[in-house]
Formats: sequence, structure tokens, C-alpha cells
Amino acid sequence: MRTEICDRLGIDVPIFAFTHCRDVAAAVSNAGGLGVLGAVGFTAEQLEVELQWLDDHVQGVYGVDLVIPSKYEGKGVEGLSPEELEAQLAKLVPQEHRDFAEKILNDHGVPHLPPEEHHNQLLGWTATTVAPQIEVILKHPKAKLVANALGTPPDDVIKQIQDSGRLIGALCGSVKHALNHKNAGLDFVVMQGTEGGGHCGEIASIVLWPQVIDAIGDMPALAAGGIGNGRQIAAALAMGAAGAWTGSLWLTVEEANVPPAQMQTYIDATSLDTVRSRSWTGKPCRMLKNDWTEAWERPDTPNPLGMPLQMMVALDGVKRGHRYPEQAKDVNFNPVGQVVGMMNKMERSADVVQRLIAEYLEACERLNKLNNA
Amino acid sequence: MRTEICDRLGIDVPIFAFTHCRDVAAAVSNAGGLGVLGAVGFTAEQLEVELQWLDDHVQGVYGVDLVIPSKYEGKGVEGLSPEELEAQLAKLVPQEHRDFAEKILNDHGVPHLPPEEHHNQLLGWTATTVAPQIEVILKHPKAKLVANALGTPPDDVIKQIQDSGRLIGALCGSVKHALNHKNAGLDFVVMQGTEGGGHCGEIASIVLWPQVIDAIGDMPALAAGGIGNGRQIAAALAMGAAGAWTGSLWLTVEEANVPPAQMQTYIDATSLDTVRSRSWTGKPCRMLKNDWTEAWERPDTPNPLGMPLQMMVALDGVKRGHRYPEQAKDVNFNPVGQVVGMMNKMERSADVVQRLIAEYLEACERLNKLNNA
Repeated sequence: MRTEICDRLGIDVPIFAFTHCRDVAAAVSNAGGLGVLGAVGFTAEQLEVELQWLDDHVQGVYGVDLVIPSKYEGKGVEGLSPEELEAQLAKLVPQEHRDFAEKILNDHGVPHLPPEEHHNQLLGWTATTVAPQIEVILKHPKAKLVANALGTPPDDVIKQIQDSGRLIGALCGSVKHALNHKNAGLDFVVMQGTEGGGHCGEIASIVLWPQVIDAIGDMPALAAGGIGNGRQIAAALAMGAAGAWTGSLWLTVEEANVPPAQMQTYIDATSLDTVRSRSWTGKPCRMLKNDWTEAWERPDTPNPLGMPLQMMVALDGVKRGHRYPEQAKDVNFNPVGQVVGMMNKMERSADVVQRLIAEYLEACERLNKLNNA
Repeated sequence: MRTEICDRLGIDVPIFAFTHCRDVAAAVSNAGGLGVLGAVGFTAEQLEVELQWLDDHVQGVYGVDLVIPSKYEGKGVEGLSPEELEAQLAKLVPQEHRDFAEKILNDHGVPHLPPEEHHNQLLGWTATTVAPQIEVILKHPKAKLVANALGTPPDDVIKQIQDSGRLIGALCGSVKHALNHKNAGLDFVVMQGTEGGGHCGEIASIVLWPQVIDAIGDMPALAAGGIGNGRQIAAALAMGAAGAWTGSLWLTVEEANVPPAQMQTYIDATSLDTVRSRSWTGKPCRMLKNDWTEAWERPDTPNPLGMPLQMMVALDGVKRGHRYPEQAKDVNFNPVGQVVGMMNKMERSADVVQRLIAEYLEACERLNKLNNA
């Protein structure tokens, strides 16, 4: 299954694992794929610690995923520090929204954070707040790949990353986005179908992938959205993808820092239990349906704000859910794709990589048999 | 690409073409696949004419697709003739809905049908109204396969079809539906992802297919939802599907009896232009977004009724749209899947079958090269 992008990165198999957990990223990279650490939510100082740890624990290379949205509230405001921008944005958040979020959490008995853990800082999520993260990445030579989760990164970021010898790409949910990425000179795209976890578009993978592949020609296109099994990787590579970008899959591995109560929620969920909701980040994002997502859907409740304002409303909920997963089980932020229905037990990350390869080979063998019968 | 179900049916390739047009069904069957005629909308007398025509024009076999919903308004009402059932159901339709439908069509200048074409009969869509269609099918030996579009057919229908030496299967949008079909003793399932045209569930193909295949074991599972290209067929067969069930694709072939204005609408549409809407049939159905679908979505307009009541509201619109496609272009019923974005020119049906096979082989070759590099 080795494709050209494997050679460019020096990895064995084109299995990319997006994760917020450094242990998972390291395990996947060391198993022959590429672990990609989600940087959103880390301060520059925290990210430095994470990447230093990865440098020490990864034999080859790894990647980092940023969130620089193409469109967001406050974009174009120049010359502000991250703190100043955040203070300005905070003024745009109606009190009604803050009160409603607080009520949902309180009604479910989710405790408040202890005062010493209480800092509602907006990290990543805007071009201003992401800049310090990029400075950190550039200090780590094993951080060989950078991906942007929401839209084409600004030109200066692309140049900075590429001049340093790294690859930079971005996620896309439509042919138009993919062409924007190509025209901006990115090195690869990640084509994510609507079934994928986290931010996603409306077009399903089986329809999106071949259209993007045809539209962007030689540029490597990684398939994302719905992949939890090597058979799906075979499907993607048969259609011309350069590799598989996976995310949900790594929420139920042994190495994941997902609290047991939350992991059980993922293991129990079926493919019918997800919803595309704006209730956490302000942009459509796939997650498990629960009392939080349904509360923001009702006709008599506030409509979610845009990004990053809704994130500023919901961030306290994310943190309280992470701190008190048992109490928050019906209102937690559980971003995951429809493939959650195939995630039915906890596995070791390295075993997942081996399983994906074995299932891929079985699928190829199935086709060969059919064609030679 | 020949699978076991090909042997059972006596066809060359497992490409199943759902269509409302007998010419398309015949062309696909004669090109080595299986044309499947959608029977909904035909009286028993009309269906007899269609199947007689198919008998005369198909060398091998063909299929027929019925609509017997598992759940609908009026289900369980025994001993009524189709006409009596329809009269009873008509009383359940609020005048507000009829008026709203009429207003949308009138506001767009869609003429009324001439009086001699005006008959608002509900054909198919209930177990009572579908029974005469089944009687017709059983008289035609080349009608070798029957599929039900909505749910597991009643036991007596299954027995009747199977005892006659025909295969009977049904569409499914979830593992649960597939297991219901298996437990009822059906011969095959059609697993349709949410990206598919017409009635569809919420789970995308790339996630749905492998789960259904694993759940139902040896029972043949045909992949549907998003297939317009042979690469997607390779993807489906690699994942273990027994064949490909296609529908949208046949709306833009030369033989289709789709009015030119409507065909152009399909050719121009992208994968972002569809919506899952209850506005025509009462159940979620994927179609092109337009003024009709948006009118029924607004908070200040009536909510669509259940099946078949909404169909009774909308049937006049379907017929006026078919009769006056130019005037109805913004309010027409255009059922189609997201694959519409890949349907960019008119083709001959036989050429489509050949293209699908060629693309399938290319995709297999791509995988072989990758694995032998």
C-alpha cells in the first residue's frame, strides 16, 4: 500500500492518525504510519512540551494539525495580541448564550472547575492565536507534516512551512475547497466526507473522493471520513487516494487519554448516534447526539453563534466534561464520525495499524479472486 | 467482477440499474447487467404493458422494484379495496397542506393538468395498492428479481415471490434493517447509504456497507448510494459487496424518459445541491434542493405529513412537473443522489455499463500495481 507520499515523508504505509494524544501519535508513527497531533487547545508552551516528548519517543517523523479557519468572527482585525482579540470577541457573545450553556451543564449536575483550573482561553481557532503554535512546530525537525483543519491556510504560513522542508496540506469537504488548496500551492489535501468526525461538509466520502481526485490531478489526496477498517482503505486506494486519514478510530485505543466513561460511550454508540451540529464550535461538526446537541437544536433555544464565538460559549462545557466525564456523560463533547458504529472494543494503537494493513490486503485479495475466477 | 448472485440470475456483471424507464432497464439487461423497473406509479394494467414490452425487448432477465413501506398511515386497515383505502386516507389530509402545495405551484406558474389527465390515484405505496402489481409480475417469467424499496415485505409476499422461483430482496439503510430482512428470509439486501437518491437513511455508504456485510454473513449484499463510476464499484466489491445497485446514473442516459429541461437540471447540479427532504413522499428522500423543498422547510409553513399522506398532497405537483418541466423547473420533484455531481453529460445506457466495467478494471489494476510495487 506504499504510495508516493510515503516516500516523501519516509513512512512505510499511508495511514495517517489524527489524535489529540501524543502517546497515540507516537505509537502510530512507530508502527509505520504517521501520527498527527491536534494542536488546538494547547498553548505554545504546552505544545513545545508535547513536541519535545514526541521527538523523544518517535523514531521517524510525525505531523501536527492546526485550526486556522478561512472564515471566522473577528477575521481581518489587525495588530491585536491574542489576548486583545479574545477580549474583543468576548464582547460579541450574548449573555443569553452563556446563561443557556451554564443552565444545561448545571441541570445535568456537572460540577464547575476548581478555580485554579479555570481559564477560558481561546487557543488556536484564529490566525492570530495559531501563530505562536507555528513558531513552535518549526523548532522540531521530526514534525514533518502540517495540516490545517478548516480551509486554506494563509500564504505566509504555507511559505513558512514549505521553506522549512515540511509538507503542508489541508482538509476539504468539496471539490471547490480542494481546488482552492491546490491553487494556493499546498502539498496535499485531506478529502473528508460528511460521515467523518469533527468539522465536516455535506458530501459523503464515496462521492467526494473520486471527484476531488479527478479535480486536483497529481496532487496527493488522502481519504478521510468513515475509515475504521482496512477494507475502507482498499476502497479509497482503489479510487485513487494516496492514503487514509483516520481520526475517530484513535479515540478507543489503549493509549488514548479519553476518560473511561467517555470511551465507553464511544464503544456503545452505533452509526446512527451521530449528528452534525454547530453547538460546540459554531461550524458543523460531527459528534455523538446527546442532551447538549439537542438543547441547541430546539426552536425555543438560542441558535449557536459563529466560530469562534460559540466555542467561547462552549469551552467551559468542554473542560468541565473532560474533568467530570461521569457527571457530564449526557452533555459531553464527543466528536466522532459515523464509523463509531464499528469501534466496538479497545485496541492497542500498534495493533490497529497491523489490523488495517491485514484487512487492506484481504480486501485486495478478494478483488483479485473475483477477477481471476 | 462476476459474483455468485450473477450466477443465480444468469447475468454477466453485478450491475443493477433501478429506473422508471423500460428502455433503460432493457438496455442495461441487454448489456450484461440487470435493469430493474420501478413499478410505483403504474396501475396493474400499465405495469402489464411495461412488462410485456420488457419481455419482448430483453434477451435475458430483468427486475421490478416495488414500494411496500413497513410503516405508513392507514396500515393495518383490513378489507378495503385500494379505492376505499385511498378515500379514507384522503380524509386525513388537512386542507392547509393541499392549499399550500397548490400555492407553491401556482406562484411558479406551473399550469394545471388538462382534465382528461387528472387522476390523483395513489398507486403502490401501501400493501393494499401494491398487491395487484405483484399479480402482474408473477405472470412474467423474465421478471426474475423483485426488490422492495421501503422495509421488509410482508411474509405472504416473500413466500409468493420465492415460490415462483424469483429472488426477492429489499433496501436497507442500517444494520438493523438488514437483519430484519435476513430474518424474514429475503434473498438479498440492497445497502443504501445516505448519499443515495430517493428514500435513504442517515448512514453513509462507506460506513454502512462493511457493517451490513459483516452482520448478514453469506447473504448477498448489493452496494447502493453514491455509485456512478466503476471505481466506486471496485470499492464496494473490495469491501465485500456482491454487486452495485445504481439509480441516479440512469436519469441522464439517452434512453431515459426524463424531459430535456429536467435532465439539464441534473447535468448542471453538483454534489452540494441535494437535500434529504420529506416534502414529496412523507419519508426522507434525497433530491435536488429547490423552491419546493425549501418552502416545506420554513418554520412558518406546514410540516410535511407522513407517508402516504404527503404523497397525496404532492402527487399533483409531481404530475404537473412531469407534464410542464420548463415551467416547473424550480419546483419539480428531482429525486437523485449526491453522485449527481459526477453526472455531467448524457450517455447511452450500454456505454455506461461498458464504462463502469472499464473503470472497475482500472481501479483493480491501480491496487495491483500498488501492492506489487
